[in-house]
Amino acid sequence: MAYLNDNYLKLQAGYLFPEIARRVREFCDANPEAAKRVIRCGIGDVTEPLPAAVIAAMHRAVDELSVRETFRGYGHEQGLESLREKIARQDYRDRGMEIAPDEVFISEGSKSDCGYVLDVLGAQNRIAISDPVYPAYVDTNVMAGHTGRADDSGRYEGLTYLPCGPENQFVPEPPNEPVDVIYLCFPNNPTGAVASREQLARWVKYARGHKAIILFDAAYEAYVSDPQIPHSIFEIEGARECAVEFRSFSKNGGFTGVRCGFTVMPKTLLARADDGRELPLHSLWHRRWSTKANSVSYPVQRGAEAIYTAEGKEQVRRLIDHYMGNARVLREATERAGLRVWGGVNAPYIWVETPAGLTSWQMFDRMLQELNVVVTPGSGFGACGEGFFRISAFNSRENAGEVARRLAKL
Amino acid sequence: MAYLNDNYLKLQAGYLFPEIARRVREFCDANPEAAKRVIRCGIGDVTEPLPAAVIAAMHRAVDELSVRETFRGYGHEQGLESLREKIARQDYRDRGMEIAPDEVFISEGSKSDCGYVLDVLGAQNRIAISDPVYPAYVDTNVMAGHTGRADDSGRYEGLTYLPCGPENQFVPEPPNEPVDVIYLCFPNNPTGAVASREQLARWVKYARGHKAIILFDAAYEAYVSDPQIPHSIFEIEGARECAVEFRSFSKNGGFTGVRCGFTVMPKTLLARADDGRELPLHSLWHRRWSTKANSVSYPVQRGAEAIYTAEGKEQVRRLIDHYMGNARVLREATERAGLRVWGGVNAPYIWVETPAGLTSWQMFDRMLQELNVVVTPGSGFGACGEGFFRISAFNSRENAGEVARRLAKL
Repeated sequence: MAYLNDNYLKLQAGYLFPEIARRVREFCDANPEAAKRVIRCGIGDVTEPLPAAVIAAMHRAVDELSVRETFRGYGHEQGLESLREKIARQDYRDRGMEIAPDEVFISEGSKSDCGYVLDVLGAQNRIAISDPVYPAYVDTNVMAGHTGRADDSGRYEGLTYLPCGPENQFVPEPPNEPVDVIYLCFPNNPTGAVASREQLARWVKYARGHKAIILFDAAYEAYVSDPQIPHSIFEIEGARECAVEFRSFSKNGGFTGVRCGFTVMPKTLLARADDGRELPLHSLWHRRWSTKANSVSYPVQRGAEAIYTAEGKEQVRRLIDHYMGNARVLREATERAGLRVWGGVNAPYIWVETPAGLTSWQMFDRMLQELNVVVTPGSGFGACGEGFFRISAFNSRENAGEVARRLAKL
Repeated sequence: MAYLNDNYLKLQAGYLFPEIARRVREFCDANPEAAKRVIRCGIGDVTEPLPAAVIAAMHRAVDELSVRETFRGYGHEQGLESLREKIARQDYRDRGMEIAPDEVFISEGSKSDCGYVLDVLGAQNRIAISDPVYPAYVDTNVMAGHTGRADDSGRYEGLTYLPCGPENQFVPEPPNEPVDVIYLCFPNNPTGAVASREQLARWVKYARGHKAIILFDAAYEAYVSDPQIPHSIFEIEGARECAVEFRSFSKNGGFTGVRCGFTVMPKTLLARADDGRELPLHSLWHRRWSTKANSVSYPVQRGAEAIYTAEGKEQVRRLIDHYMGNARVLREATERAGLRVWGGVNAPYIWVETPAGLTSWQMFDRMLQELNVVVTPGSGFGACGEGFFRISAFNSRENAGEVARRLAKL
């Protein structure tokens, strides 16, 4: 008799975005006229075309696969060496961080790797996550059996939640209790908060003191414009001994549909075996990749590599400027509407307190029905997200301007 | 203190193919002249360019991503609907099997899904695998903690091994003991064996009788030319209630570097929860995909879709004919050399008994040093593979002919 993984039965409702899609579909079916006016600022999906340098590189790579002389089959299990070299140099070494190409693992996106990293970690670890938080961190831990059941507020027994709110500007401090694995995401999804060098240094100090591991999600680092704000956890002294970093090409190069990202797993990061030995996680992670996958699509990796050319960098810069221009428009309009607002300065998300004590989903429904604007309810990101909602700046400028005009009617 | 997943420490040596690569590299470094003559028939990697229909479709898809009007970001979590419809119709319904598009999940390759499927299965299942076998099935079970340690022959405590050899023509019969999850792969990697309709029917009967699940790897189905041999487990009555099927575009469309495959998870396949309920695995598998991934690269999926056009099918047919022509050349040459041979008729692998009682790795070294031909040692696929080696037919015709000539010198 085959058994299923019972941990999946602990998961609550649907994943957040399918539930939003369902409500929007129902509204549009019932209101065909209003449906034409609906503007989606919910899911953080890019809207602008790929950079021209990426397009050209992907075409060249596809052509290489069309003739025997340049055809390529299975690639290096960690990803193209030339891509990993560019990442190690441009994202890290040129910025003073010692990361080697063989510490970089190319993946089909940071969402996947944030879940897959649990494969190489022990089930006995105590896991700390921010609240509100990107739901995939929580759900993958539930699936892996690291939690008990959820309580009425949606919190799972066995996880350590780090409350984030206006009182700490949505940047948690290390807890008083010992934890073993900590998820941090800056610039933050969903709150748009960024962590200062000093705040991250306190986390690295905590992690080194407790021999804990920081899983640092830097998917939105390209949106940081303040020179004081770190782009990478490895800017902090000592992070090579306690951190893994996830990066994505989704939000800089617009790869949400192309799928590529990478994980930096320093060889100096150790974790404890049951017999007390401390061993590098790098070799386990490498074994995981060579056993469970065959690297990432060749034309996709060549496309990612084009992001590191002078032309590609300039084109990505323009994409970021475009989305951050939207963020400014949306942030200012939300403030003018008399709402309390965070984020939207070094991040493409605007995090807003609901007015008049509305719940997040009540506000979601009101925004949908009255303004025909889709946002993301804060409570979908955790109990501490209740009473907030997220506006995504991923849109055309025209739509951002139109949403700003509608917000004035709130 | 962060703990690692101790199960990884049970894994033996390197994964097979990195170890082969290491030995070949050492030989070539020590013998620069012979290195120029080396022909690789080891890893089963395609050598011929992508079909023209695939190339054209990928170019069109890349162009779509270059303008705002046709740009696409995140796709459907199960993969493009149009691709899943073509698969359901052409691979299944047109051949008399009832498979719906929403039972098809597009993946980045069947290797990944063969491992990922363990995510949704319980840890208490007793796992049965053939011996010899594709190493990823074993290693992913070790990683997931479904085994104890390995013994001297490399067999892991806790797995049920199904011995395959000349006595059963490398097709195992169901065991006398009850098992819960069974891996079957036909046409088989590494032995090239195929299972008849009657043999598969006995497995389906066993699985239904024991409420077990068959994980059926059909990555090489395109190589079946005998009309009596099933291409899919779903050709067997009752398989919808007991089987999952993995398919790949790697070995038909030449996608080893492009990365795409799919899994068929019928909605009628149930597994037991701890409380005794029997629930569809489909909803868990769907949840896994929407939580851990964001579907497969858009241009890659469009490339896969082109395989289902009239032009694409004809081009794939020519690729298969090419590789199977190599298989015939290699099989005949191996027989002429006086060796006992299996496979190579409905599969691109030739499975050969080592001469004069040599071990698999001794024969590997002899083939490399004397003939400068890289093969795969059978013992790398399990204890019952000892005394055999595998020759891959994935090569140019010129190389296959040259290997055939060298075999005459054995």
